Amino acid sequence: MRIILVGFGVVGQSLARILLQRRPELVRSYGFNPKVVAVVDKGGAAVNMRGLDLEEILSLKVKEGTVAASRDGRPDLSALEVIESVEAEVMVEVTPTNIKDGEPGLSHIKSAFRTGKSVVTTNKGPLALALPALTELAEYSGVQLRFSGTVGAGTPILDLAKKCLLGDRIISIRGVLNGTTNYILTEMEEKHISFHQALKDAQRLGYAEANPSMDVDGLDTACKIVIMANWIMGRKVTLKDVKIEGIRNVTREDLEEASRRGRTIRLLGFIDKDLKVAPTEISKGDPLAVKGVLNAVTFTSEFTGEETIIGRGAGGMATASAVLRDLINIKEALSSTL
Amino acid sequence: MRIILVGFGVVGQSLARILLQRRPELVRSYGFNPKVVAVVDKGGAAVNMRGLDLEEILSLKVKEGTVAASRDGRPDLSALEVIESVEAEVMVEVTPTNIKDGEPGLSHIKSAFRTGKSVVTTNKGPLALALPALTELAEYSGVQLRFSGTVGAGTPILDLAKKCLLGDRIISIRGVLNGTTNYILTEMEEKHISFHQALKDAQRLGYAEANPSMDVDGLDTACKIVIMANWIMGRKVTLKDVKIEGIRNVTREDLEEASRRGRTIRLLGFIDKDLKVAPTEISKGDPLAVKGVLNAVTFTSEFTGEETIIGRGAGGMATASAVLRDLINIKEALSSTL
Repeated sequence: MRIILVGFGVVGQSLARILLQRRPELVRSYGFNPKVVAVVDKGGAAVNMRGLDLEEILSLKVKEGTVAASRDGRPDLSALEVIESVEAEVMVEVTPTNIKDGEPGLSHIKSAFRTGKSVVTTNKGPLALALPALTELAEYSGVQLRFSGTVGAGTPILDLAKKCLLGDRIISIRGVLNGTTNYILTEMEEKHISFHQALKDAQRLGYAEANPSMDVDGLDTACKIVIMANWIMGRKVTLKDVKIEGIRNVTREDLEEASRRGRTIRLLGFIDKDLKVAPTEISKGDPLAVKGVLNAVTFTSEFTGEETIIGRGAGGMATASAVLRDLINIKEALSSTL
Repeated sequence: MRIILVGFGVVGQSLARILLQRRPELVRSYGFNPKVVAVVDKGGAAVNMRGLDLEEILSLKVKEGTVAASRDGRPDLSALEVIESVEAEVMVEVTPTNIKDGEPGLSHIKSAFRTGKSVVTTNKGPLALALPALTELAEYSGVQLRFSGTVGAGTPILDLAKKCLLGDRIISIRGVLNGTTNYILTEMEEKHISFHQALKDAQRLGYAEANPSMDVDGLDTACKIVIMANWIMGRKVTLKDVKIEGIRNVTREDLEEASRRGRTIRLLGFIDKDLKVAPTEISKGDPLAVKGVLNAVTFTSEFTGEETIIGRGAGGMATASAVLRDLINIKEALSSTL
């Protein structure tokens, strides 16, 4: 399988490392033989139709700051030019999330579809803004669109629902989908500190961004709710359909008061009749009352009742392993249509 | 798909109810059109090659105590005779677990394989005693063997590992796999009562059997560990390979002492270098520290780290929904080989 990799930050580099390390086993176990024919970063591209030397590309990225410094380097080529001109079965889109207009990811994905390439992405922006349209476009173009890494990083939250609950009917979903806010709420509760103090600590530790709005205002959780509602429940919704409230107004006193009653507060995303993100009081015994940077999602099904999956919701290697899972699934889907 | 249903207790009857209720949707969503051509219980069998009237069979079971009272009744036929003489694609084996010699389930399964039928079972006995041999036999006969309902009832513990962690490598597994013992330990801890008192309460509430040995001596957990080790990790092991210790020697004092240190005791099954079942001290914040009759399993993978799935580990409808999931999977496997 020929792969174009667009974006070469933490996730992109982790994927390259996993592919290097696991290749013999991937061929043996899944008949999956990945060949990265192009990598694009901000400095340009590297292209080699016989497959790039990933070891060289990884070390150049560290030493020179861009893959364009490779002997296969093409500093002149943009991501769109590479996607349009290089032949490949799959484009992996791992540029940063932008929920204003979804760019540049949105254009990358559309361009891949137009040129007959399946897409694996970890970029929540295009999906949160346009998943119903992108799903239709992929179908129309006869290609696949996968995005396991967008929810729960390596924790297979989307796959659990889609592949493992066959025959049962998922009625509702609720979950802790953002590690940063969960870390802040846990710290506020356990150390009896204010939101602002906990946020500052999280920023110092690298758990929160300098501009923490995506996390603490509930936008990241809302993006994930949109993705799950589309993929798992078949709803055709986008970010504007979600009622969103973040955690800025949760006080130390709120948490202390809840704690006295054996309860705690978590930022939950809900998919029920409506889509909602809000700080919510739950029992400390609820499987969703996870601590620190964990994610946790509870599915309520007609016959099996409630099922919860818990795992780390972040991490380069974890997210890259979700991309790998998607690539294997696309490989299987493509071979079954031959 | 023609189905022979052997065993018509809680799970068998729940399956019949789900099939009745969901048929139109199963055809529409999965192209799955189940036809139960035989049902066997202790009183005999009912056989109709055009498909039994499940509504009639269910109400006869309640009124007359056996399906053999049906107009399609065959009080003269044994389970083995039905399996051998009735044409069908799948035999569903839901008789009670017996870990002494696995019978009668073991003979039912072998007989099904011999006559070219795939098997779905919720019976842990044959699997714990002979899963490596049964897997080979199924392969040799060109049929499928599925048993999702044996671990976690409706909670898709086996499927999560097998289908959702593609491309990653599961290094070890540990989990709370028996709801009865977890209920007893939770009650001992929260109500400060002895093992014997908690066991008596559990028996009164129907959570524990009159003879509680399977649960409290760790045998049920050990069976599940064997099934997971074979199915998920590819190990060829049986019940005799598991080191087993139950919860009879856990005291109220042990739990109180652990609690003072923020910890608790759970009966855990382990798959690591060795297979083991033992009461184990864990942090109260560990996702495995679930309360009451819940099950919880943590998978440790190379790239994604730890992932935990939590759900109810028992219930007729939940277990029957796992059987349905297996039937749909077999249907898909059979059509892909046509």
